[in-house]
Order: sequence, then structure tokens, then C-alpha cells
Amino acid sequence: MADRRRMSLGASIRGLGYHTSAWRHPNVLPGASESLSHFTEAARIAAAAKFDMVFFADGLAVRGNDRPAGALSHSHENVELEPTTLLAALAVQTRHIGLVATASTSYNEPYHVARTYASIDHISGGRAGWNAVTSWSEQEALNFSREAHYDRETRYERADEFIEVVRKLWASWEPDAFMHDRKTGRFYDPEKLHAADHRGHFFRVRGPLTSSHTPQGQPVIFQAGDSERGIALAARHAEAVYTIPQTLEDCIRHRKAMDTAAARFGRAPGSVRILPGVQIVTGRTEAEVAEKLMLYDEIADPVIAMARAWSEYGDLSGYDLDAPVPADLQSSDRVSAMRHLGERAKAEGWQLRRLLREYGAGSLRVLAGTPDKIAAEMQEWFGSGACDGFNILPQHLPGGLADVTELVVPILQERGLFRREYEGGTLREHLGLPAAAAVG
Amino acid sequence: MADRRRMSLGASIRGLGYHTSAWRHPNVLPGASESLSHFTEAARIAAAAKFDMVFFADGLAVRGNDRPAGALSHSHENVELEPTTLLAALAVQTRHIGLVATASTSYNEPYHVARTYASIDHISGGRAGWNAVTSWSEQEALNFSREAHYDRETRYERADEFIEVVRKLWASWEPDAFMHDRKTGRFYDPEKLHAADHRGHFFRVRGPLTSSHTPQGQPVIFQAGDSERGIALAARHAEAVYTIPQTLEDCIRHRKAMDTAAARFGRAPGSVRILPGVQIVTGRTEAEVAEKLMLYDEIADPVIAMARAWSEYGDLSGYDLDAPVPADLQSSDRVSAMRHLGERAKAEGWQLRRLLREYGAGSLRVLAGTPDKIAAEMQEWFGSGACDGFNILPQHLPGGLADVTELVVPILQERGLFRREYEGGTLREHLGLPAAAAVG
Ligand SMILES: Cc1cc2nc3c(=O)[nH]c(=O)nc-3n(C[C@H](O)[C@H](O)[C@H](O)COP(=O)(O)O)c2cc1C
Ligand SMILES: Cc1cc2nc3c(=O)[nH]c(=O)nc-3n(C[C@H](O)[C@H](O)[C@H](O)COP(=O)(O)O)c2cc1C
Repeated sequence: MADRRRMSLGASIRGLGYHTSAWRHPNVLPGASESLSHFTEAARIAAAAKFDMVFFADGLAVRGNDRPAGALSHSHENVELEPTTLLAALAVQTRHIGLVATASTSYNEPYHVARTYASIDHISGGRAGWNAVTSWSEQEALNFSREAHYDRETRYERADEFIEVVRKLWASWEPDAFMHDRKTGRFYDPEKLHAADHRGHFFRVRGPLTSSHTPQGQPVIFQAGDSERGIALAARHAEAVYTIPQTLEDCIRHRKAMDTAAARFGRAPGSVRILPGVQIVTGRTEAEVAEKLMLYDEIADPVIAMARAWSEYGDLSGYDLDAPVPADLQSSDRVSAMRHLGERAKAEGWQLRRLLREYGAGSLRVLAGTPDKIAAEMQEWFGSGACDGFNILPQHLPGGLADVTELVVPILQERGLFRREYEGGTLREHLGLPAAAAVG
Repeated sequence: MADRRRMSLGASIRGLGYHTSAWRHPNVLPGASESLSHFTEAARIAAAAKFDMVFFADGLAVRGNDRPAGALSHSHENVELEPTTLLAALAVQTRHIGLVATASTSYNEPYHVARTYASIDHISGGRAGWNAVTSWSEQEALNFSREAHYDRETRYERADEFIEVVRKLWASWEPDAFMHDRKTGRFYDPEKLHAADHRGHFFRVRGPLTSSHTPQGQPVIFQAGDSERGIALAARHAEAVYTIPQTLEDCIRHRKAMDTAAARFGRAPGSVRILPGVQIVTGRTEAEVAEKLMLYDEIADPVIAMARAWSEYGDLSGYDLDAPVPADLQSSDRVSAMRHLGERAKAEGWQLRRLLREYGAGSLRVLAGTPDKIAAEMQEWFGSGACDGFNILPQHLPGGLADVTELVVPILQERGLFRREYEGGTLREHLGLPAAAAVG
């Protein structure tokens, strides 16, 4: 164990990268989002830099509305590997790095999710994590025999019960339940088996799970969703959250809200690790950074930027791009983090053009600069206690990730902010998390 | 391509083996059913012998009733790896062998199944197969918010629509849909994208799938379920069936019924590959075989045999074990293949003791003898046209599989009945199957 607090780093390596037109980058293979070797390479880059984990977002549909018409065909975010099978394959190709994948609580069954992630924990020797989300897209509903997506309240109620069931299932077998006593013929001790016997509003699940106590006791639970309900969910169940705050102040607010909410479940401040996502663009010199940004601007496709904005605000084509973001723009409010970007744009008096540019660049939070500058900002956030580390969202893969591991990570290591070697073998150990607690 | 018809061989390597007390075998590690290395070893044994595939049965519950009381705690069939994550891990550790896993159409959503198997097909370079079953156990219902299992008719209606949806989803993208045209910004050609737009009785699924055309076009569809409805389902959708006939005559009947049913969908005789499962026990000499059988008898646990029989017939403890199987025994009829075993016992005038012994040995079909005898029987079945190969169910793993690959396979190869080298790279090629057709 380290004697001082270190930051955690995740590499979010879904698809081709977080720039909405990453596929047009000269160093990106446009077909790579279904190629295992692409992800193996990215995971190995992250593992060589001793990252805590690789992280996969997910969606259960080709998402996005085709407005303006034809916009979807410009997007590379349509085909991909299913993330739990991908994690299992990566488990074999890596040794230490944590393996986290997103699964929706709105369009899954808790028995399947409990089973799949337990299996990955066994296969990987204790490196599995589940990012529980409630999904944001209407399109997913249409793939699961529904006419419309659940409203936020229902989604979060279902999510709360869903995670409760998963945790109960993971606790089906005590660690020493299996006696394997050849003489008596007793394979397990029935006293150490606990059916979930869950009868709730959304689910009735008897259990037990077809998985023994996993190497981590239970896979690490992440949560992503920034609304009040999202925070309440995490406060009860999550061990880490993935969030996209626009500013340091937002992140500090998030931390405080989380600690307050967690206290209601008897959890100490800081129990829930906070890992903001950040799209980093870096290079050896200011000039190199500028060059990279210019290239990202060049490949950015205005059709995609418009489509993203359309999903959030409706048709913006009648607006003056050089005027400030109109005060009356109404967010669809599907994802709180997206609404926050628009609020920031208004508060800071951005031109509409800049907001659209952010949508083209990925609509999350872009941090660009030389490695020193990036490291300093990470240190500021981390040092202030706002967060416990970062989820790195490379603009293109694997190049954008390699930039961070080659240029930024060594500075963090020199400053004692990040590990030089793995000190444990499980994701739980990387994150400094205790053994999992029973459902509260 | 071979100029003469060769048989297909699958290795069914679920858990510790098909003997119900395999865990008590001296060469078995009782904890191995959650250990990746155990399955890697078995898969490599099968791959070295050029098997078409490894095959995983599955269940979504700790199945079986705890009667007589405490019986379940004698069974090793309670914890296991989830099979699709296991396949993905094995995909990385093997190069040629096909990878088939079972998924229930009763307790899944077609979008998930389509996505997961497509992903495995991409990860493995075209080696994925899906064994579609309707599930047989009440326990599964209780893990998925139902009070009872669907009746057979409903199960099969749902299965039919389920597989139809999966096949439509797999056809979402034409093989050349992705243009990746950096200049125009067109990632794909919208004309080559086809949403499933399925609106049926059980499912409404819009699609498209988040997976491009897979290396095999679509993963190979297997079906297992021997009733008339099961055969009708396979006739429409399956490319291979896994079945447990008790006798050669049964198998020939199955083949004829399948060909007749398939003709209704315009499919030529033999379109659906028939692969009977068989539990092989072999050794270098008759004495060695006898010794192995004796060991299996020794480890067999009467509690388990009784529990299996109880699930099928209720409490048999009042019956005389040395009397013939009573004519009035009523099968639960959950699984047609199990009912057939009882029918055979009655027809052949077995003592009840022998029927119980079969339950203890795995309740499927055990073929014991020297390699010559085994090979001769396999040749007879294959040569008669009753079947296209076999799914080998080893009594214990990996030893029971190695016996078959070391002793029996060389004889089949010498006789030109089985390949010496892989001739293709995909499961579809191993099975000699054509490219997948559109949903009929
Ligand atoms: C950082 C972050 C990552 C997310 N990742 C996913 C994802 O991978 N898949 C998904 O369906 N939803 C994802 N979500 C969205 C959640 O599904 C959630 O439903 C949505 O944010 C609306 O809830 P909220 O207002 O609480 O954020 C993510 C949200 C955040 C903030
Ligand atoms: C050879 C064979 C293998 C089977 N494998 C499975 C399995 O792995 N999981 C499962 O739930 N059911 C399995 N089944 C059972 C099917 O789920 C089916 O529901 C059951 O056999 C009842 O239908 P039937 O009467 O048509 O056979 C299998 C059946 C057969 C004949």
C-alpha cells in the first residue's frame, strides 16, 4: 500500500475515440471498432502506463436521430463489439489492469448482469467492474419491445432495485461454501448458500447465482448519471462514479453532494470514488498541441455537430452562429451532463459556433495543452479533493491515449501522484477500495 | 474442400464432465468449473484433434429440486462461468476451433443475443455458434420475475419469433455497407442499412444491430429440443441440431422428421446437420474400459441419481430396485430426451436399478468400449445417414475428452471419416454449411 494518496486513472477506450469524427483522423483505422487487436493495443498501452482500468461506455442501439437528414451516416458510432465479450477477451490479453464495462439497468435483467460480471471477475482474476447506467436514448427502448424510454424517475427506481438484486446475487455463496468433500459427497455446505429471495416492485429473483464468491468478492460498481437521482443511486450502491463536470467548482459540488448523500447510508466521506471524464489533447510543445487541435477541427464534421446539437436543442440552422448562445435554448434534458455544457456556454457567453464546435469535438470536456499544463490541472483537481482521479477520453485511438501515457503520466509519476508499478492484482486494490459490503 | 463427406465432432466441455459426480473423480479438480485454464485445456485438446467445435450447454439457475432433502449439495452443477464470456476468452486462446454456447430464448431478449454472438463472431474471426434452447427448468422462471416456466407451446412460439428477430438483426448491414469515405464524410451507405422493424406477438424490435455483417455472415444456429415443436423450430431456423437419441433407429427417425419438416421451408434434405450427443467411455483394452466404468460407478452418488429420477418421476424410494421399471411411472415430460430414456428402459425391460444407474452416470447415452468398438458404432451411425457427426460428452474433464481424442479420433482419421487438418477457418466451413440464408 502506498503511504500517500495516489490518483486513479481509467482509459475510456470505446470505439475509435471521443472526437465525433475520429474515424477521419489519418492515424485511425475506420473499421477498427470491431477489431479485437485495436482494443488489445489500447488496453496494453493503458496497462503499460499502470492505469487502474480500461473503461467501456455502451449503448443498446444505433443511437441518435437522423436530423439533419443523412447525418447518422456520417457517424462512426454505429457498430462495435459487445463490451462484456470484449472484456473477457481482453482479460486473457492483460494481467493487471481493471476491466470495466457499462450495462444498462433499463434494458437488462439483474440475473444476467450479475452472472456476466461475476464470470468476468473469475476469468480475469478479480479485475471486473460494472458501470451501471439507466440509458438515455429513445432508440434503445425501441429495441426492447417498448414504445418509449422510461422517464428519469422510473429509470432510477428500477436501477436502484436492479443493483440491489445484483448485489444480493453476488452474495449467494459464502467464500468458503465449497467443501468438495469427496468422502461424504458434499460438494457445498447448504448453510453457506443464500438465495436472494428478492420480491420487489420491478423484479422477483429467487437466486442463488450460478457463480461462487468472486476473486474481488464482488465486481466494483461504477455509476454514471449526474442528476440528483443519479447521485442518490450512487450514494447507496456505487463504489466509484464517472461524471463529466464542466468546471472544478462543479466537481467539488458533485463531491459534496455525493458525500452528503452517502452519509445517509452510513458511508464515510470519500467512500465513493469520483472520476471525472476528460478529453485530453496534448503534445510536446504548444505548437504541436495547436497543430493537433487544428487537425481535430479539420476532421470535425459540421453535420455531426449539428445532429448532436439537434438532439439536445432541436433545429439550430436558423440561428446566427456568431451571436451568443441564445438564452431561450431549451435542453432536452436527457443527460444532465449535456445540459450542463449548454448552461456553461450561456454562463460564459460563448458564441453558438463555439458550442457547436464542442459538440463536434465530442461534447464532453476537452482539456488541451502541453503535458505540464495538463498535469498541473489534474493535480489541482485531485489536490483540491474534488476527485480521486480521471477517466481519460482520448480524442482518437490508440494515438490520443498514447500521447497521455507517454507525455503526461511520467510527470504525474515524478510528482508522486500516480503509481509506477501495480501494487495489487485486482481493480478493487488499484482503486484502494475495501472489500464489498452487504446491501445497505 | 474434402471430396468425400466427413463427420463433424463437437466437444461438449461444460463444467467438470457429464458424469453427475465427475467432481469425485481422482483426476478432476472440483473447483475447476470456474477456472478459465480448465476450459482452455479442454478446448486445446479438442482443437489439437481438429474438432469442429467446443460446445457449452447452459442454465440460468442452480437447477434441480432439493429432493431427497440435501441432494442439491451433492451436485457440482451449481457454479460455472457464464458461457458467452467464456467463449470470448477461449476465442483468444484458440485459432480454428468453432465456439458454440447455449442461450435460452425464454429468458433473454433477442437484441442482446444477436449482439453478443455477433461480437463473438467478430472476436473469433468467424467461429461463433448459438445453441438456441427454450429452457426446461422451473428454477429459471423464478430468476426472471415469473412465477412459473412457460408451457412448451408458448416457449416454442416465443423461440420461433425470437430466432426470427435475431436473424433479421444479423442482416442489418450489408457486407459492403461501410464506405469510410473520408472525403464526403460518409461512414456508411444508408441504402445498405436495413432496420429489422420487427413487430410481432412477443417482440417489437426496430434495430439495426450495433454489429456489422460478421465474418460468417451470421453465427451458426444450433437447436436442442427433441419434441415435434422442437423439430419444427429447427426446420425453419437451425443449421444444426444437438439431440440425444437412445438408439440408431430413433436417430434415423429424427433425421427423417427433420428433413420432412425442413422441406416445408424449401430446404433440401440434410440441410440441418444432426449431431447426437454421446457420453463415451473408452480405454486401450476391454479391461481398462471395465476399470474406468467401475470407477465411475464407485464415484456415482446414489443421492444424485435419486434426485435426478425424482425430478423426472417423483419419489421412487418405495420401489423395489431389482424389479423391472414399473409401467406406470409418469414422466414429468420437461425434456423429451429424458422421457425417451424412461421409455427405452421400459421397452427393454430394465431393472429400476439400471435406470437409476443411468441417471447417476449422466442420464444421457453412454457408449463404452474399446476404441475400435466406439469407432465402429460411430461409423455405423454416420454411414447410415442418421447423423452428420457427434457431440462428445466426456464423463469427466479433461481426461475423458483426451481419451477420445487420443484413442478414437486416430481411427476415424485412418478410415477417412474425420479430418486430419482444418480445411477452413470458420465454424461454418468446418460444418460444411453454406452462407446463411435470409429469414424464410
Ligand atoms: C459520464 C457519463 C457516462 C455515461 N455513460 C453512459 C453509457 O455508456 N451508456 C448509457 O446508456 N448511458 C450513459 N450515461 C447516461 C446515463 O444513462 C443517464 O441515463 C443519463 O445521464 C441521464 O441521467 P442523469 O440526468 O442522471 O445524468 C452516462 C452519463 C454520464 C454522466
Ligand atoms: C441435447 C439437448 C441439449 C439441451 N441443452 C439444453 C441446455 O443447455 N440448456 C437448457 O436450458 N435446455 C437444454 N435443452 C432442453 C431444451 O431447453 C428444451 O426445452 C427441452 O428439451 C424441452 O423441449 P423438448 O421436449 O422439445 O426437448 C436441451 C435439450 C436437448 C435434447
